[in-house]
Amino acid sequence: MNEDELVAAIAALTGPTSHVLVGIGDDAAVWQPSRSRRSVISSDALIEDVHFSRAWMSPDDIGWRAMASNLSDLAAMAAHPRLGTVSLGVSPEWTSDALLECYGGMARCARAFGLDIAGGDLTRAPVLTIAITVIGEVRASNCKTRSGARPGDVFAVTGALGASRAGLDVARRTVQLDDPLTAIALAAHRTPQPRVAAGRWLGASSHVHAMMDCSDGLSSDLARMARASGVGARIERVPVADAAAAAAGALGVDPTAYALAGGEDFELLVAVDARAFEHLSRRFHARFGHPLERLGVARADERVVMVNQGREEPIAQTGWDHFSQ
Amino acid sequence: MNEDELVAAIAALTGPTSHVLVGIGDDAAVWQPSRSRRSVISSDALIEDVHFSRAWMSPDDIGWRAMASNLSDLAAMAAHPRLGTVSLGVSPEWTSDALLECYGGMARCARAFGLDIAGGDLTRAPVLTIAITVIGEVRASNCKTRSGARPGDVFAVTGALGASRAGLDVARRTVQLDDPLTAIALAAHRTPQPRVAAGRWLGASSHVHAMMDCSDGLSSDLARMARASGVGARIERVPVADAAAAAAGALGVDPTAYALAGGEDFELLVAVDARAFEHLSRRFHARFGHPLERLGVARADERVVMVNQGREEPIAQTGWDHFSQ
Repeated sequence: MNEDELVAAIAALTGPTSHVLVGIGDDAAVWQPSRSRRSVISSDALIEDVHFSRAWMSPDDIGWRAMASNLSDLAAMAAHPRLGTVSLGVSPEWTSDALLECYGGMARCARAFGLDIAGGDLTRAPVLTIAITVIGEVRASNCKTRSGARPGDVFAVTGALGASRAGLDVARRTVQLDDPLTAIALAAHRTPQPRVAAGRWLGASSHVHAMMDCSDGLSSDLARMARASGVGARIERVPVADAAAAAAGALGVDPTAYALAGGEDFELLVAVDARAFEHLSRRFHARFGHPLERLGVARADERVVMVNQGREEPIAQTGWDHFSQ
Repeated sequence: MNEDELVAAIAALTGPTSHVLVGIGDDAAVWQPSRSRRSVISSDALIEDVHFSRAWMSPDDIGWRAMASNLSDLAAMAAHPRLGTVSLGVSPEWTSDALLECYGGMARCARAFGLDIAGGDLTRAPVLTIAITVIGEVRASNCKTRSGARPGDVFAVTGALGASRAGLDVARRTVQLDDPLTAIALAAHRTPQPRVAAGRWLGASSHVHAMMDCSDGLSSDLARMARASGVGARIERVPVADAAAAAAGALGVDPTAYALAGGEDFELLVAVDARAFEHLSRRFHARFGHPLERLGVARADERVVMVNQGREEPIAQTGWDHFSQ
């Protein structure tokens, strides 16, 4: 089984639920504490040497990125971060000082986006294991899922892709970049910024039909949104971050493929009503200082293709699937 | 640093929080979604070969126990279980079938106590890692913490202790018991019952001043409640489960010490107004079919002692501290 098949089998086991409006399979689950409000909950575990390595990240950065990854799931539901819990599994290699530095990175990221850390759990583990749960709140009318895209919608992302992957390659010394791209790439990888403000802004628009984050790489995530929505996708262009273009150039690989497969960028992927896209994109630019990047359109048949020199080619799902590695 | 010191250092890092009423250090954190209601959240991670082993537990039992351990934290806050998330880190040794069996045990336990599993996360890990977060709700006036015990209060537990430890010893074949104690001990270890109903019942009484669960062993947990409440404790007797008494006998150790250090029993420890204890205990017996077991009393000085043949002896904190192992 791959990850998506296993998730489907697990969702079948949990059965129908009485309190939950959006369950297993989206970025976060949604429940309804009152008529007009929705609470959003998301959990993510980060495992040493699977998701991060002390060889190329400081404990502080590891903590920041773990928290940012969870906040990105709230951003994708247009939710306001409220509170979270942190369970740490600690291996003997981690001193109390390193552990507190890691926790400091988490606390700093949480504070930067308005989240209170409310509790948690400490235990031993063979490698550092960071399991975070975050809860946010959103007005019922603003909450977006990944399943609302309609044929004809414009697919777009909140920023250029691939910088985090370039930062990982710089940190691993598989590539060298000039300044300031080195610093930009490393920052994108080590202290990524979850798009909390952009998510809430986009959630407030009724023209945004679906939203999710790009944490696994656009090629995987776009296919997931299309499948959840019962549509296909025709991608005309992929916005490549400058650092990613430089890294792809240095490695001699196609910049678009590099950006598509990168992952961990935490940009938001949206499906927007086509008639409203230009206006929304201009307003987005005015608010956030850079455009909402158009990727292509949703189509009625369920194929996900990329236009390459005028020809449609299927997009390989080259993103990160933890179970296919 | 031991676990309690590390938790204190972490709590200092997270700083003051605006939404959270009870934060790091209690069984669960509490926040206030509306004036009269409290939401309670708790996270626990269980790590293969730290908290459980496939050598003496089936995947189904591992799943049940992981969920029960989290529900016990809600029981300790008198909360009604609502929803939870599950993050699984999966090692290559776990087949999809074993994983789904484990998830089935979690889902069965969740359903038995009214909790909806709302989402989660799957990733690779070096050993099976089960990180669960659960959310419950409680009326503001019923929510109990571990810090409310007052000098003169009666300390009591919701049931006899040590059966889970006896089950572990049976499963590991370090001890043999006669039937039906073997079955009782194994069930206590493999499919423990969180005291959700007892917790809600006790929470509804204004005479219950403090409550927590005994997951780390009564000796550790009683010391924690006493410290959090700024009181001491004088323990006169410890109720030992029949299976624990038999196991201690077979091993040639003191049954009381065995029950004190056992842990994982998930009974609730309460501090009750002394004048109300007899009446409350009788009502508890009528409702749950067995007595609320009196341990001793809270005292104004901060010593935690046990009465042994008329002499007061300090209680060794022999419970489970993950960081002192």
